[in-house]
Amino acid sequence: MVSWRGFRARRAAPKNSRPRVSQRPRVVSRVQLGDFTPDLDVYLGLAAYLQLALFESLGRASSIAPSTRAKALTGLVATSTLERHKSLLTEIERTGGDAPELMQPHIVVIDDFQKRTGSGDWYEAILASYVAAGLLNDVFSRLAAGLPDDYRERVVAALERGASSDETQIVAELSLQISVDPKLASRLALWGRRLVGDTLLVARAAIAASHESADDERLEPVFTELIAAHTRRMDALGLTA
Amino acid sequence: MVSWRGFRARRAAPKNSRPRVSQRPRVVSRVQLGDFTPDLDVYLGLAAYLQLALFESLGRASSIAPSTRAKALTGLVATSTLERHKSLLTEIERTGGDAPELMQPHIVVIDDFQKRTGSGDWYEAILASYVAAGLLNDVFSRLAAGLPDDYRERVVAALERGASSDETQIVAELSLQISVDPKLASRLALWGRRLVGDTLLVARAAIAASHESADDERLEPVFTELIAAHTRRMDALGLTA
Repeated sequence: MVSWRGFRARRAAPKNSRPRVSQRPRVVSRVQLGDFTPDLDVYLGLAAYLQLALFESLGRASSIAPSTRAKALTGLVATSTLERHKSLLTEIERTGGDAPELMQPHIVVIDDFQKRTGSGDWYEAILASYVAAGLLNDVFSRLAAGLPDDYRERVVAALERGASSDETQIVAELSLQISVDPKLASRLALWGRRLVGDTLLVARAAIAASHESADDERLEPVFTELIAAHTRRMDALGLTA
Repeated sequence: MVSWRGFRARRAAPKNSRPRVSQRPRVVSRVQLGDFTPDLDVYLGLAAYLQLALFESLGRASSIAPSTRAKALTGLVATSTLERHKSLLTEIERTGGDAPELMQPHIVVIDDFQKRTGSGDWYEAILASYVAAGLLNDVFSRLAAGLPDDYRERVVAALERGASSDETQIVAELSLQISVDPKLASRLALWGRRLVGDTLLVARAAIAASHESADDERLEPVFTELIAAHTRRMDALGLTA
């Protein structure tokens, strides 16, 4: 089990201020995700399985969408999620690996995440997609810096596919609904806090799978940046992270 | 409500023999789907919503897949389903239409189909996808012949995207599982018979939406062909239709 203390303490930082490493006493050698050299098979298997899991959640979200517009939006987000998945499968093929075999070791972590965050109505489900895809695609994009040269660019391009447009559209739809129903704001803010904790556990597992000595203390600046980006995503919805 | 008698009678025809119209007494003026001139908005809205509904079912199927290989296969099929959906949205944009608005009128028919066929385990869910996507993409491809020239080719290309490869892979996986567990064969054969009836109701609604005078009798040769193609799809699995 992972201690929650670190996440909580960092989350309490003032909004929109990203603490710089230089402001803190340096007691350990801190790291950046780009310094890591992920095992290609582990990285691709986990990244591909994550997109598949996000697609599943979006399938459920679509089936409980409150309007055809919400359903259509869910379909768009699912499309780019599966396009990312497909591109990652292409990279797995390039390595000569077998996708189901490479995805298999990561089922427990991801399915556990799905179980903990997969309930709720459409608003909660689409927020979960926004928060988890935003944070975890960010983690994988940074980790990609340590992949072999010929994979790095293609993998980053795959992960970024549709991401910006999806986020814009989710923000537009959720902001509209929040403006219509102000109670939704507090419910989603609460849900966002729950989600970020669960999502960071997956991020941590993804990082640990890429680096043996990736202990929490050395990773502190990484988590700080991830949480700052999460805070910006919640800000975009007018919600407090 | 639609009478089932016609479907049942036709289904009892000998396997793999596609009755030609010339063998039957011509008492009514029979039609081919290519003779119809579908309303472009109705056609695109229904076709786009159908792909979205198929994606939802695949999301549920993925979440109950019995193996990572089955899950990966489900993801592949969902990817091409959403690619078809996305291409149809592009065509809707081209008309200047609003996708959610054009999809809205078709929710009842499709959601009702989903409710009647959306239960069961992964094997039943993936067979439902195979049967429904196979038959309904076939219907929409034929109806596309009556679309305006500049839409026809693009729409048919969109509908055919990934279809053949998806079918091959579903057949490979289901055949493998049927060979391991012969009881699965009878269960899936039974399920296939239930599915074809429900799927033909959707086909009929799609055709009716394209042509006011599309009564059952005039459409008989169309249904005969659709059922013959369905029989071939079940044959490919070694199952009796």
